[in-house]
Amino acid sequence: MWKMLLPIGRNARTGGYSRSPFASAERECMAWYGEEAARRDLEVEYDGQGNAIAWWRPEGAAGRGVLVGSHLDSVDDGGAFDGPLGVISSFAAIDLLRDRGVVPTKPVGVGVFVEEEGSRFGIACLGSRLATGRIDAATAAGLKDADGTYLLDAMTAVGCEPSLGRSAMLEQVEVFVELHVEQGRDLVHRLRPIGVASASWAHGRWRFDFAGEPNHAGATRMEDRHDPMLTYAMTALAANKQARLGGARATFGRVTVEPNNTNAIPSRVQAWLDARGADAELVDRLVADIGRQAGQRAERDGTTVSVTAESVSPTVGFDVGLSRRIATILGDAPVIPTGAGHDAAILQLAGISSAMLFVRNPTGVSHSPAEVAEMADCLEGVEALAQVLEDLAT
Amino acid sequence: MWKMLLPIGRNARTGGYSRSPFASAERECMAWYGEEAARRDLEVEYDGQGNAIAWWRPEGAAGRGVLVGSHLDSVDDGGAFDGPLGVISSFAAIDLLRDRGVVPTKPVGVGVFVEEEGSRFGIACLGSRLATGRIDAATAAGLKDADGTYLLDAMTAVGCEPSLGRSAMLEQVEVFVELHVEQGRDLVHRLRPIGVASASWAHGRWRFDFAGEPNHAGATRMEDRHDPMLTYAMTALAANKQARLGGARATFGRVTVEPNNTNAIPSRVQAWLDARGADAELVDRLVADIGRQAGQRAERDGTTVSVTAESVSPTVGFDVGLSRRIATILGDAPVIPTGAGHDAAILQLAGISSAMLFVRNPTGVSHSPAEVAEMADCLEGVEALAQVLEDLAT
Repeated sequence: MWKMLLPIGRNARTGGYSRSPFASAERECMAWYGEEAARRDLEVEYDGQGNAIAWWRPEGAAGRGVLVGSHLDSVDDGGAFDGPLGVISSFAAIDLLRDRGVVPTKPVGVGVFVEEEGSRFGIACLGSRLATGRIDAATAAGLKDADGTYLLDAMTAVGCEPSLGRSAMLEQVEVFVELHVEQGRDLVHRLRPIGVASASWAHGRWRFDFAGEPNHAGATRMEDRHDPMLTYAMTALAANKQARLGGARATFGRVTVEPNNTNAIPSRVQAWLDARGADAELVDRLVADIGRQAGQRAERDGTTVSVTAESVSPTVGFDVGLSRRIATILGDAPVIPTGAGHDAAILQLAGISSAMLFVRNPTGVSHSPAEVAEMADCLEGVEALAQVLEDLAT
Repeated sequence: MWKMLLPIGRNARTGGYSRSPFASAERECMAWYGEEAARRDLEVEYDGQGNAIAWWRPEGAAGRGVLVGSHLDSVDDGGAFDGPLGVISSFAAIDLLRDRGVVPTKPVGVGVFVEEEGSRFGIACLGSRLATGRIDAATAAGLKDADGTYLLDAMTAVGCEPSLGRSAMLEQVEVFVELHVEQGRDLVHRLRPIGVASASWAHGRWRFDFAGEPNHAGATRMEDRHDPMLTYAMTALAANKQARLGGARATFGRVTVEPNNTNAIPSRVQAWLDARGADAELVDRLVADIGRQAGQRAERDGTTVSVTAESVSPTVGFDVGLSRRIATILGDAPVIPTGAGHDAAILQLAGISSAMLFVRNPTGVSHSPAEVAEMADCLEGVEALAQVLEDLAT
């Protein structure tokens, strides 16, 4: 399966992957998903807004089903495993169960959620948020990508028939188990190939708009400037310091400068803060502190700053009973928290009992070509997923 | 004349102008220039690399000529006057001389130099550097714009026949007087509409490449990061502080981040430093100080930084005798320095006696839609240029 998927959206220079949602590379991945489902006689259900479930319904299987799967989109120049590992492992786990003659008494679904990374429309887990109604249709309809294309237009351009609302197909899901490459080195330190998630940290994205006075870089005296770049620079350093002090995480990884000329003091700097922490109050306090320091510096610089929350998610404890049960099945697998957001967290918030499996990542790196998982650990992941499915679906 | 030129390349939202060299808006301006020259029976000479001189050669005019003029390109979202004011005033000054029956005994040329702003190929005064041989052909041939288009291809795409070398047409020039909108408020404080330039500050552009380790913004512990954004942010603040301390100017107005995702620690930040000062040693010391502080911070951040000079120009004192003569003609016009680079400075360096006239700018702002000049002051500028031409060319 990897063989088909690995060339898609790959940058030959970096070895990284760019699979932006509703665009060619990600659509090729979705076509691959359809073929893998068809090869296994799974019946694929699309919700018209980019999400899908490939159902295995053996004779006699009844009631609401057990969902596995993950996502196929990537950040720009991301790794090979973040997302696809969960989808591939899900197909492989079904193969394993069938080889072993296991016949589920509940439907088993392999799900794919779209725009998990938020790389195109700025909202992480957009597909699962739409499918669970955790973003309202009006907000979603207003989303635009960097080129000004609206979400609805991007969807219809690739043949989706979006309703921008809750997906009926999720009503058939009782429980969701998402397998994912670990984004950190917790399992490396524990010498274990597989772990179970305890909670997904509270996290969010905030847009900082710094505005100043555009002017000539050579002719304008230093004391006459209102340079928003300086306000931004101090804010980026403050964010780092505050996150260290507070035991949280804060990152400015995306910046847009206008007009972005070497010889012009900018009129505007837009920068996006990614902030995370063990609980929502911690994150709120962190963002407020950063915003306050930005405001103070803006006063000194004669610039202005405004802060807009673009997406905010509370801490999500996955289903404790389910997670404990899975850890037990897997021979007391370690239970570890995650700083990353996931579709499983969105489904848990929406009332669908959810859990996550992590596969060891030797570098701990993710969202980068350096993200990695050993083949042996991936196979352990498939075995674990098969055991979990056998337990939950029979 | 303004009427034809004002709509070209204008952004209706900001009121600013974007006239990138060898692209449609700037080419329209060049077409306008050709028409204005033809209307006055001036003979236009093109050098095949984007520069041009429209010659007025009355019967009996002989020897090397007096060049006036400026440039027609702009920074992205720049002002209406920076460049075009000098070209329009030159045509208008010829009209005035003809109305008055003045017949020059030397040829008078209205020149346009291409890519003065360096907005597309990163090197300011590129046209005049090429025409005077102050950039070698191999370096010029290697220049690419942000889309990867080579300078030579951009030139030939709009019908130029580039040789990338000294322009023979400059051999016919004895003296160059460039009129320009002031980029600062010196004339405002002096209550004078017109000034004469004393010297153009030493200035240059340096590219700072900050490299780190791309990783997940949520899952990576603060202490495990190697985030080049932090190194850049400290460097931008240091540049500002050092320039203030040293009585110089330093600006980071252009930044590119890779991969520029909200939830990814960047792999790379590229930022361009524009630095200027009264003399070249001051600027060298400034850039060295900023580079040293960047290196120290990079060590703390576990990142790397490298600094590449992209274009560096020494202080250019314009022709002192010429400037004094012009100031006297204009009733003791004030003589003021300029932090901006100009084609006249390049020609002076290349041994062509050069001077500049400035027209008062009430806001002092330039490289921005807020750049302005009053009509009465512009007419004073035309009058001044006509007087200078009458003095120098008859």
